[in-house]
Formats: sequence, structure tokens, C-alpha cells
Amino acid sequence: MTRVAHGEAEADVLAANAAFYRAFSEGDFAAMSRLWAERASVACFHPTSVVLVGRARVLESWKEILRQTSRLEMRCDRARVHLLGEVAFVTGYEGNGSQSAHLAVTNVFVLEDGRWRMVHHQAGPLSQPLPRLVSRSQVN
Amino acid sequence: MTRVAHGEAEADVLAANAAFYRAFSEGDFAAMSRLWAERASVACFHPTSVVLVGRARVLESWKEILRQTSRLEMRCDRARVHLLGEVAFVTGYEGNGSQSAHLAVTNVFVLEDGRWRMVHHQAGPLSQPLPRLVSRSQVN
Repeated sequence: MTRVAHGEAEADVLAANAAFYRAFSEGDFAAMSRLWAERASVACFHPTSVVLVGRARVLESWKEILRQTSRLEMRCDRARVHLLGEVAFVTGYEGNGSQSAHLAVTNVFVLEDGRWRMVHHQAGPLSQPLPRLVSRSQVN
Repeated sequence: MTRVAHGEAEADVLAANAAFYRAFSEGDFAAMSRLWAERASVACFHPTSVVLVGRARVLESWKEILRQTSRLEMRCDRARVHLLGEVAFVTGYEGNGSQSAHLAVTNVFVLEDGRWRMVHHQAGPLSQPLPRLVSRSQVN
């Protein structure tokens, strides 16, 4: 893979990762459903929970989470793509609203029919919340 | 991939996963070092900690863990392979000795030079320990 193609693939994976947190924040189950892979083996660890396996069970859990009336403004801080050909994993930290990130997260994506789609999510508690990075312009 | 090839790949990934817990339990840093990928992008979340990125930093952390004088007999219960071509992720639960598993785990492997090698590990606490599955022969 050329450097340019690598950079483009990383950007596409980051966009898919951002789409996940947008669907989560907006309670958009249709978008969440489109995001998860159709054919690849799918699994999900919600924080401190046992694993859910299979598209049906994973999406059922997200439907329940997204149905909650109190919306969470979820974000992924310091998202970093690790590209493995047509598979990629993203590491980062999940936070809600203006709060510091409180969960470590791994999101795994696969290129399915030309689109990066999620195959796995694991979020788990951090021992200490992680403050958002403040840009230099905000510091000075 | 044929069904037979798929089964063989799953068995090879499970063997690599088992090799990780054996190296961990035996404090065998050389084996741990051989297990992690040489070229692919490598990362690791130890329980409740921030991510470590890059082979050198990840292996430095394992050297420190394996140096501890009190050996941990680590095992991975209910290991399940999710095969994505030449990448695979394993979900399971980590336990120590005879104790119930207390960590949810994702291990990601990549086929490098014909060998499944680890590229990512995330372990995080379960809300409730998960008892080991007891085989029928032990029940009856």
C-alpha cells in the first residue's frame, strides 16, 4: 500500500469511527445498524459486561442503549488507527459531554464492499479519567 | 477460504492465544517477544490503563510485568476466534489460578510470515467474576 493510499485508508477508518459515535450520540439506530458489518463475525463488549456475539445480538443491545431517553454525547478522544490491510483497529478513550474520558476503547473495522464497517467494540473503565487534550491556542 | 482451511486457521489462532497466556504464566519474556508482531502496528491496553503504542513500549511493559516475582497462572476462558482473513480477534475472559475470570479480553492477531502474531491486547474488569465452565464429566 502506498503512503497516500495508507493515509486515505486511515482517514476512512477515522470517519467510520466518528460515524459510530455520531450514531451513538444521536440515538440513530438505522445509522448504527448500517455501520456494523453484514458478513464478518461481529462481537461487542459493553463496559464491564460479558461478550455479545453475532450481528443480531449486538444490534439488539445497541437498540436498547439508543432507546434510552437521556441522550449521551459520546466522543472518542485521541483516536488512533492501526491499519492491517483490509482490517483496522482504533484505540482511543470514550467521554461523554464535557466530562473527561472515562473508558478505554478498541474498535475493530473491516473493509466490506468498499466500506469500513465495525466488527468489534470493547470499552472498559480507566483507573483515572483522562482530561481532553487542550490545543495550544486554548492554553496561550 | 474453505471450511477446512477456516477451521485450521481458527485452531492456529487459538494456539497463538494459548501461547500468549503460557508466556504470561511462565514469565517467559523471550516467548512473549516472539509472539508480538514485528512489522504490524502494535498496541496494548493493560487493565484500566492508557494505551501503549509500538512494539518497544508494549514489550517493555510486558518485561516489567513478567519480572514480578509472584507468578500469575493466567488463563483465557471461553476463547472465541473471529476470523477476518489474515487478521483475527479473540474474545474471552482472563482468570488467574483457580479464581473465576475477572477480566474481559480482546486479543488481535495478524498472519505475519505464516505465523499468527499478536498486534493488540485489551483487558478490562468485569462487573462480576465469571465462573469457569464445568465440564459434564465433572458435574456427573
